[in-house]
Amino acid sequence: MGYRVAVIGGGQLARMMAGPAEALGLHLRALVEEPDSAAAQVIPDSRVGSPRDEPAVGALVDDADVLTFEHEHVSGDLLRELAGRGVRVQPGADALAAAQDKIVMRRRLSEADVPVPRWTAAASSEDVRDFAAEVGWPVVVKTPTGGYDGKGVLVLAEEGDDDGWRMLAHWLQTGRGEVLVEEHVPFRRELAALSARRPSGQFLTWPVVETIQHDGVCAEVLFPAPGLSEELDCTARNIAHTVATTLDVTGVLAVELFETDDGRLLVNELAMRPHNSGHVTIEACRTSQFEQHLRAVLDLPLGATQPVAEHAVMVNLLGSSLTDPRQAYPEVLRRYPEAKVHLYGKSVRPGRKLGHVTITGPDPERCLARARAAVALLRGEGVRP
Amino acid sequence: MGYRVAVIGGGQLARMMAGPAEALGLHLRALVEEPDSAAAQVIPDSRVGSPRDEPAVGALVDDADVLTFEHEHVSGDLLRELAGRGVRVQPGADALAAAQDKIVMRRRLSEADVPVPRWTAAASSEDVRDFAAEVGWPVVVKTPTGGYDGKGVLVLAEEGDDDGWRMLAHWLQTGRGEVLVEEHVPFRRELAALSARRPSGQFLTWPVVETIQHDGVCAEVLFPAPGLSEELDCTARNIAHTVATTLDVTGVLAVELFETDDGRLLVNELAMRPHNSGHVTIEACRTSQFEQHLRAVLDLPLGATQPVAEHAVMVNLLGSSLTDPRQAYPEVLRRYPEAKVHLYGKSVRPGRKLGHVTITGPDPERCLARARAAVALLRGEGVRP
Repeated sequence: MGYRVAVIGGGQLARMMAGPAEALGLHLRALVEEPDSAAAQVIPDSRVGSPRDEPAVGALVDDADVLTFEHEHVSGDLLRELAGRGVRVQPGADALAAAQDKIVMRRRLSEADVPVPRWTAAASSEDVRDFAAEVGWPVVVKTPTGGYDGKGVLVLAEEGDDDGWRMLAHWLQTGRGEVLVEEHVPFRRELAALSARRPSGQFLTWPVVETIQHDGVCAEVLFPAPGLSEELDCTARNIAHTVATTLDVTGVLAVELFETDDGRLLVNELAMRPHNSGHVTIEACRTSQFEQHLRAVLDLPLGATQPVAEHAVMVNLLGSSLTDPRQAYPEVLRRYPEAKVHLYGKSVRPGRKLGHVTITGPDPERCLARARAAVALLRGEGVRP
Repeated sequence: MGYRVAVIGGGQLARMMAGPAEALGLHLRALVEEPDSAAAQVIPDSRVGSPRDEPAVGALVDDADVLTFEHEHVSGDLLRELAGRGVRVQPGADALAAAQDKIVMRRRLSEADVPVPRWTAAASSEDVRDFAAEVGWPVVVKTPTGGYDGKGVLVLAEEGDDDGWRMLAHWLQTGRGEVLVEEHVPFRRELAALSARRPSGQFLTWPVVETIQHDGVCAEVLFPAPGLSEELDCTARNIAHTVATTLDVTGVLAVELFETDDGRLLVNELAMRPHNSGHVTIEACRTSQFEQHLRAVLDLPLGATQPVAEHAVMVNLLGSSLTDPRQAYPEVLRRYPEAKVHLYGKSVRPGRKLGHVTITGPDPERCLARARAAVALLRGEGVRP
């Protein structure tokens, strides 16, 4: 086994693998969509190409010891072909299918008795109405593939939601002819259980976090999840273990969970890669999700996941009124010397994930207030460019 | 002010600036001696050239916002010429002169009443004998420039040290005709006071560490220095402040100190850049020396230097019997999951600084024992390649 990791994707997740690759002396090679992508700015061996372009992916894995991913938008057929040629693909195409297709995911998790919202695959609006007659209105409709950050998700009411029903009809016509329909679960909050697993089996979890979404996009993460009972913490970690082993996930796995009003945990989404809910591990844990992902996909022993901070808060920078959020540095670094600011080198667009701020400390309220204030400055609030 | 930092040097110190540059979204550009140097492996904008080559340095600073260094082997005249053309050089040539020339350093520190061993500049062996008649034998002789890691340093006895006297004669003939001679100070241990200073004046220190040298090379660092009295801690930080302001140092400054048998602190050496004694700040402090150096030379507000670990120990990997220390990864990462392993991507040579291991925790003895054991594995002890 060598130490060359090929990663598909040029965004901030590949970018944040560069630090631990440098520390461990691993060679990182990225397939990026643009020459100046977030990852290409910091990974010398970045190659421009599409993950759907077979020769580009073939060249990427040439002499690499393992192929991994920072997103799920890759062809399972291509990965299976590569695996057939002896390329180590981590996670493998079969595992990845459950992160690429929400109906596959629901089916496999249900078969493994992992708690999920009640669901069905619907091929018509009649199917949706039949399912709703069983679980009650409203229902949640999701495109099986291609959705992310709140896109491809719809809460549908029986009446008075013409836009929603039109969207459903559009999805059924333009997609593969089916959608995932789920009960609308009344939940107290959302949690995420982060874990990592090696091909040879070792499995470790990080402390469970609370995630706060705005418009379907992760906005804030509280580490550890405030007031989570030991029982639910344990349940969440056990769910992560069942998911990882059932689906044969390797590398980092993020399991997004609903904590329901009646105190149950239900799996909402899966990601088989470093995840926004895990950025906080860079400062808050002995081993970050980025280092762990590299170790796991190379089948190296995993690093300790124990917290090194009592509390931590991560706040995303989503868009900015500044042409460059670094214009806020003199102000933000002066006011918040304890803040760890991460910017991804991306140009500003409305709502775009441009970076994040993590603050650790003994007082979670204070961490949250200060991280929010730091991000507000980076968003351009009160900063003169 | 922009965010492009040009750094002269391609070793591990420039390499370890890459992580914080990535986090803060700063553009790092390195002048490296070899295309596959430690820094070039992780800094996409690396350019091959000599720091003595004026066109190479000129091209490096073109459109950069600041020029800084990972070593002192640069020409003061060239830096002065660049500064004359409006290039920001941090630290400046005058400050750097005191890190390049030990006689200049001793003279300036003595003028500022900074405690140093008694010293003189000697142009002949007669001068050395005259000085020794005053301070006692043995004396320490150092070449004014070019020494590092124990090279260019000699402990000289009055009689029976023919090799030493021959070396002195050689230095006086081949160098610029003078050497630094110092009293041989009986010391309890060595300490290092790490600090950073911005051009606009802000100054911050990190906790003082103990450094353990083997054959003049830094081997281990204990954070914070065990059992250091508050008074001496404060004295060390004050010395750092006086040195930084007197010499107008910008960026990171490492002041190496003797704690003498009679409880005084004397300045031994200076480095105006991130330093081996500060690697421990990566894991042990809120802001590492590498992040701080980038912030300081860009004149951005400094990050908090508070410890985030009770104790930390750093052990250097100096040479290895393995052809590649990563061959020890399966064993070292399994046995020491809490260890943070740093390898610099350098080929193995006897005694070469190939990497380091840091372990943080509540028990300093345990940290030290485990970090030493981890490094022993990386050195090839007990590992089958």
